[in-house]
Amino acid sequence: MGRRYDTISFLSDYGLVDEFVGVVKSVIRDIAPDAVVIDLTHGVAPFDVRAGSLALARSISYVPTGVVLAVVDPGVGTSRRCIAIEVADGEGVLVGPDNGLLAPAVAMAGGSGRAVVLSNTEFQIEAPGATFAGRDILGPAAAHLCNGVDLYDLGEPIDAGLLLPGVVPLPREEAGALVTEVLWVDRFGNCQLNVGPDEIAHFGNEVRVTVGELSGDPMRRVGRRATNFQDIGAGALGLVTDSYGMIALCFDRRSAAAELQISASDQVVLEDVGDENPTGLSTPVNLRINR
Amino acid sequence: MGRRYDTISFLSDYGLVDEFVGVVKSVIRDIAPDAVVIDLTHGVAPFDVRAGSLALARSISYVPTGVVLAVVDPGVGTSRRCIAIEVADGEGVLVGPDNGLLAPAVAMAGGSGRAVVLSNTEFQIEAPGATFAGRDILGPAAAHLCNGVDLYDLGEPIDAGLLLPGVVPLPREEAGALVTEVLWVDRFGNCQLNVGPDEIAHFGNEVRVTVGELSGDPMRRVGRRATNFQDIGAGALGLVTDSYGMIALCFDRRSAAAELQISASDQVVLEDVGDENPTGLSTPVNLRINR
Amino acid sequence: MGRRYDTISFLSDYGLVDEFVGVVKSVIRDIAPDAVVIDLTHGVAPFDVRAGSLALARSISYVPTGVVLAVVDPGVGTSRRCIAIEVADGEGVLVGPDNGLLAPAVAMAGGSGRAVVLSNTEFQIEAPGATFAGRDILGPAAAHLCNGVDLYDLGEPIDAGLLLPGVVPLPREEAGALVTEVLWVDRFGNCQLNVGPDEIAHFGNEVRVTVGELSGDPMRRVGRRATNFQDIGAGALGLVTDSYGMIALCFDRRSAAAELQISASDQVVLEDVGDENPTGLSTPVNLRINR
Repeated sequence: MGRRYDTISFLSDYGLVDEFVGVVKSVIRDIAPDAVVIDLTHGVAPFDVRAGSLALARSISYVPTGVVLAVVDPGVGTSRRCIAIEVADGEGVLVGPDNGLLAPAVAMAGGSGRAVVLSNTEFQIEAPGATFAGRDILGPAAAHLCNGVDLYDLGEPIDAGLLLPGVVPLPREEAGALVTEVLWVDRFGNCQLNVGPDEIAHFGNEVRVTVGELSGDPMRRVGRRATNFQDIGAGALGLVTDSYGMIALCFDRRSAAAELQISASDQVVLEDVGDENPTGLSTPVNLRINR
Repeated sequence: MGRRYDTISFLSDYGLVDEFVGVVKSVIRDIAPDAVVIDLTHGVAPFDVRAGSLALARSISYVPTGVVLAVVDPGVGTSRRCIAIEVADGEGVLVGPDNGLLAPAVAMAGGSGRAVVLSNTEFQIEAPGATFAGRDILGPAAAHLCNGVDLYDLGEPIDAGLLLPGVVPLPREEAGALVTEVLWVDRFGNCQLNVGPDEIAHFGNEVRVTVGELSGDPMRRVGRRATNFQDIGAGALGLVTDSYGMIALCFDRRSAAAELQISASDQVVLEDVGDENPTGLSTPVNLRINR
Repeated sequence: MGRRYDTISFLSDYGLVDEFVGVVKSVIRDIAPDAVVIDLTHGVAPFDVRAGSLALARSISYVPTGVVLAVVDPGVGTSRRCIAIEVADGEGVLVGPDNGLLAPAVAMAGGSGRAVVLSNTEFQIEAPGATFAGRDILGPAAAHLCNGVDLYDLGEPIDAGLLLPGVVPLPREEAGALVTEVLWVDRFGNCQLNVGPDEIAHFGNEVRVTVGELSGDPMRRVGRRATNFQDIGAGALGLVTDSYGMIALCFDRRSAAAELQISASDQVVLEDVGDENPTGLSTPVNLRINR
């Protein structure tokens, strides 16, 4: 017997309109009646492995000791593998498809320990079709882990180094500007970038924000650093260190995504307003002075 | 005292924007603190008894031993009755309105045992208005059943044969073609039909799919049988045996419902491409050859 | 040590697409593993303190003994305070921002007992940014209360009379008419008004309903009193005493909000049809007779 767990933290792109999530929880309840399931979210956009992996990475340091069940799985039923990976000396096990979904969270949790392919059908549910791995393979694996089934009983050991890596975009410097990417647009329209405050620490209080490709017709605004939303000021663009320690583009009680017309994965260029017109383009917002 | 239960599986059309579901769960927690509530789904379209009954039928074989609470109830507060029905020798009890919502799941679970009308107000909550039976009648009944209250204490026994039947559409053969109906469009746009693989086993690998009434201007496509979504091939229409053992119209990572402009309850005609032009209509897709 | 609680009833405007709710629950599970969290709703519109306060007020009499965690908090991270308020001799504690969100529920629960500002950082989670009080301050406070931490250990006592009051609009009489406001439009399109049946008890069975400002071009309809939705009759407007004991504008199986084009906070004027043309305006619906 392996270690027992009492919590399954569950993330998926199943949505809450269909009964997918409820059926997976029913299966888990049947196998492991004492396990508590916490829904991280089921609102990941259909098939969006990148968005799911980022939501999981944001959550992972808050998730209780136990099993993490993650399902964003466009390749369900194909030869892509279902896997389980131990992290933090077995404090946690991540269960999901081998498509990069788990990788950033595994990295955040300190890297992988033991890992297996979920090949042992004894711990799976037989089904008439192969398109619901959450119900038939991944959910049962999570539940059996809670019951103390050892990881190595669930299938063949694999080298975690051979699993599909996740894709977390890195910012880059270009002619004094910082070329970033929108990682996440939240319900309130705040746009989290892939930079932390340290990376713009050498900028002044005001930052020029350029949305879209520089070669096209990008939108330019000047934003100011702020510690909360009201501090930004009405109608103004703020750069706020968000609750995960990343820089987010925000407006007070309005959606930055709507105001700036940006979505996840869009490019955003940040420049210090102190620099004089560094990219050779003039813009009236340059006239605003640093308060 | 009757048998005790520890799980309530809950399905409704309450949605998750209002606090309806939360209030029902609060009432349950108050009456039966140890009962665990599993949300099957609350995303059934408002008043859509048919969709609710099908979601319940799809779920029922996965639901844990216990009580099923189902509320899609346009006739709330009228003379339509609230009922509870035992299935599987008392392994389960279904609680809901007598409007056909429970019928397909009861049938799937092997048919009804004892049944009552929830007429005993002692096990109900008094309320100023009659429009929230989930909170005032059905939820409390589910909770009291968990506590070991016997079914017959909740109200008058009734003959389950007299309850309103559910409507599950059957496919029909017509001039060699199979006239089917879309039972369910899921979040990913997969369109489940009311036929299983056995019913098209005599068809070849390619199947002509006609959406809409033949007398109108129906859309025709050729789909091919596939065991998973990627197997369909990019941009192609697939007929996949879904996770419930039914044939579903699918595209790989795209919505079949959007591609084919179909919704639940729409008619879909399936024909073997091997047959030469069986309905007397020509279509260029006939030129595709079986791979 | 204070009293222990085992249930946290959780309401927010976090939505269910992001992982906010899941992360707060993870934090709670970590601190108070035995606490059960009941989601009242997370579908309050972003920043809509009024809607959140009304949903909480509607729920409060059904919520189990325990802690209520409520987060609709546009001022997060500013000087607005996080607070906890005991109600019903300590049967319940409400935890949330001091922005009026809790006030109507506190009043419904019989008024406040002890109250504190959540100033003790010992019971908070350190975070890189100040924009997620649900995770860092409010959720942990709710969890520690479940564990038996005394209210006064969470921070400085405050006079509950000095907290920001909630805004619950009152109806007013004007020239024999009752000027009301839409408190809530639910999933089914029913429009709850801020009047109960007693306030229109002197009206006859038919009531003239005027939507919009009288000075503009208001929509006029005659509605009739009904005890449930079917009783209204097809296509007709009904005034139903809803499940919370308030008058709601309803149609049978159709959305009154869509039919009448009204939203929460809109003005609705009610007049007794028995009165002859009280506001000096003629309308053909006057011709309908009382059945």
